[in-house]
Amino acid sequence: MNDPLVYLDHAATTPMLPVAVEAMTRQLTGVGNASSLHASGRGARRVVEESRESIADVIGARPADVVFTSGGTESDNLALKGIFWARRDQDPRRTRILSTSIEHHAVLDPLQWLGKYDRADVELLPVSAEGVLDVEALRDSVTRDPASVALISVMWANNEVGSLQPLDEIVAIAAEHQIPVHTDAVQALGQVPVDFAGSGVDALTFTGHKVGGPYGVGALVVRRDLSVSALVHGGGQERDIRSGTLDVPAIAGLAAAVGASVKAQEEHAVRVAALRDDLVRRVIEVVPDAHLHGAPMGPGRLPGNAHLGFPGCEGDSMLMLLDARGIECSTGSACSAGVPQPSHVLLAMGCDDDQARHSLRFSLGHTTTPADIDALVEAIGPVVERARAARGHSVKGQ
Amino acid sequence: MNDPLVYLDHAATTPMLPVAVEAMTRQLTGVGNASSLHASGRGARRVVEESRESIADVIGARPADVVFTSGGTESDNLALKGIFWARRDQDPRRTRILSTSIEHHAVLDPLQWLGKYDRADVELLPVSAEGVLDVEALRDSVTRDPASVALISVMWANNEVGSLQPLDEIVAIAAEHQIPVHTDAVQALGQVPVDFAGSGVDALTFTGHKVGGPYGVGALVVRRDLSVSALVHGGGQERDIRSGTLDVPAIAGLAAAVGASVKAQEEHAVRVAALRDDLVRRVIEVVPDAHLHGAPMGPGRLPGNAHLGFPGCEGDSMLMLLDARGIECSTGSACSAGVPQPSHVLLAMGCDDDQARHSLRFSLGHTTTPADIDALVEAIGPVVERARAARGHSVKGQ
Repeated sequence: MNDPLVYLDHAATTPMLPVAVEAMTRQLTGVGNASSLHASGRGARRVVEESRESIADVIGARPADVVFTSGGTESDNLALKGIFWARRDQDPRRTRILSTSIEHHAVLDPLQWLGKYDRADVELLPVSAEGVLDVEALRDSVTRDPASVALISVMWANNEVGSLQPLDEIVAIAAEHQIPVHTDAVQALGQVPVDFAGSGVDALTFTGHKVGGPYGVGALVVRRDLSVSALVHGGGQERDIRSGTLDVPAIAGLAAAVGASVKAQEEHAVRVAALRDDLVRRVIEVVPDAHLHGAPMGPGRLPGNAHLGFPGCEGDSMLMLLDARGIECSTGSACSAGVPQPSHVLLAMGCDDDQARHSLRFSLGHTTTPADIDALVEAIGPVVERARAARGHSVKGQ
Repeated sequence: MNDPLVYLDHAATTPMLPVAVEAMTRQLTGVGNASSLHASGRGARRVVEESRESIADVIGARPADVVFTSGGTESDNLALKGIFWARRDQDPRRTRILSTSIEHHAVLDPLQWLGKYDRADVELLPVSAEGVLDVEALRDSVTRDPASVALISVMWANNEVGSLQPLDEIVAIAAEHQIPVHTDAVQALGQVPVDFAGSGVDALTFTGHKVGGPYGVGALVVRRDLSVSALVHGGGQERDIRSGTLDVPAIAGLAAAVGASVKAQEEHAVRVAALRDDLVRRVIEVVPDAHLHGAPMGPGRLPGNAHLGFPGCEGDSMLMLLDARGIECSTGSACSAGVPQPSHVLLAMGCDDDQARHSLRFSLGHTTTPADIDALVEAIGPVVERARAARGHSVKGQ
């Protein structure tokens, strides 16, 4: 591996902010279960509640809305199963869940499970070639039988191609029929403005390690008056929605990271988008048939996301060739890594299998520098050449 | 609060071992999602797999048996629901779950939920006055209809009164009928010898913050060939049983803590049991009608557990009076703190409501010193006097 490392995989996980490391390590040597009644317990509880208030404050929620979890996957599972179960208990006609074909696996997989084992009717609505939900398809689906919709779940921004979703319109459609809306904002928080109350959604997922906080902690922000059935039962912590001993150090680290990343969001977005625009422009200069997937660079796209297709290349080969040069990126979601499969997001956007396989995601973050972009631009030509040669293609576009 | 703090609530949570803090903080500044394919991702994965191997090694399991979770409550929920669902899917006659009346809420509450919402027939078997499962009752229940038993779940050691459970006999009964056995070993690991393969159980729960490791991480150790349905669906991590981004720093801290606490277990148990025996003897000298609940001090009881009844006192009052003197203990499980209720464990052992309410748990751990015992012995007389006065009793036993 070359030195220094060029890390362009911030959408998979981003390094912890020093302020979050500090807040967390300060608590690691503490003692006291936040459910204990003695002074140490009350001190631990105070850290948790101050963290909850600080998070609520910066994301436009009330403290009671914030339910701490072990991270994004658990929050998504809790939102989908918990809201579905509670809504169907209230009215057995509510069997439908409407979502999109480009959600993260942490949404798609629980939906599939609910469909297979729990009689949910799951509809994954189509998206445009730019990876944006077809709002008219959602409207048609809702109005066909509004009383049967238990909930709507649409991500705030797509994790692979960075396209922001039309949440305002989704919320407006849902509001006509008092249908709750959940959004997975794991990729959005700290990158674009996220205001829970202002957005009108009823439940929102975020996680620590995508905003410069720790792994293993996140939250489901959920309106206090929305019923949510628990997934994990026990001591009754977190409004009885999520039992388990509170992870005081991680919660303190999460609060510090959310505070810092939201405060820096506007400046961060401008800086990172400029680097990203530069990356895309210069890579296409070197590899003229490379092309951007997803929404155009601008307000409809996450500032740090560059998802590029390289015709004639295998994404996995390119990933390994770049890695050998100390440049780290992804072919899609880290969470489904292991078995190489074409991205369900690209397929939903109309790419064919080949197009879906020749793609790479570069995701920029708080540690990204212009030198990182220079290093990628320098490497990309030879890497594409090698990757094309490996597939037996003639070398084009050099 | 007085100084220094006398912390006698290690069963609720015990301070992190320096070696665990060090292992964890070393990873906090790292980068790389353990599911990513590049060098940073592979490095993170290596930390996870080395931690898994080291944990497996010290608890007598194979690495593939260790499934990382967010902690004890999640592990218990996963074991109970996941094994029940899988076993019933294999054979619909398997509707019974046998457990005990003294389990932690992280077991009782998911069982109650399975009974209420998922047609499980849950039987909570009785215990003796010393808090030990009535093995004959278990045998009768199993032999009545073995084919209908989906699983048996019995804790390794009780969290309130410290009584060890007869796992050997339980496993022998279960083995006759190929019924899987789960055990919540949250309180046992690091306190008494715990050998997964040697015990013959099929699934075992433990958690970080009870063994000197971090909060927010634990494991379900579960035989690779036992089917377990997932509770949380997503990226397919951890044998597809438990999805969610792996918490690399916490897993490293967990491995360090499990390694150190298991290695030190024998010496720790001797040291802490001597302190505990001293505590009980001297407290009863000061308060002659105080008495020990649970198994006699000796091999049938957790070495650090002293659960004492103080007739004529409210446990909650005593807890607060001791707290005011800088001595921290518990009336029972921290996890159900909040609403004062008589302990279900003491009630199951045959205590009446009053006896169940006049009790305190002192739990000793790796930081406990003889000076802590001295401080408690000095404080207990006046505290009992005040607590009795508060209830309008005449002061006895001084």
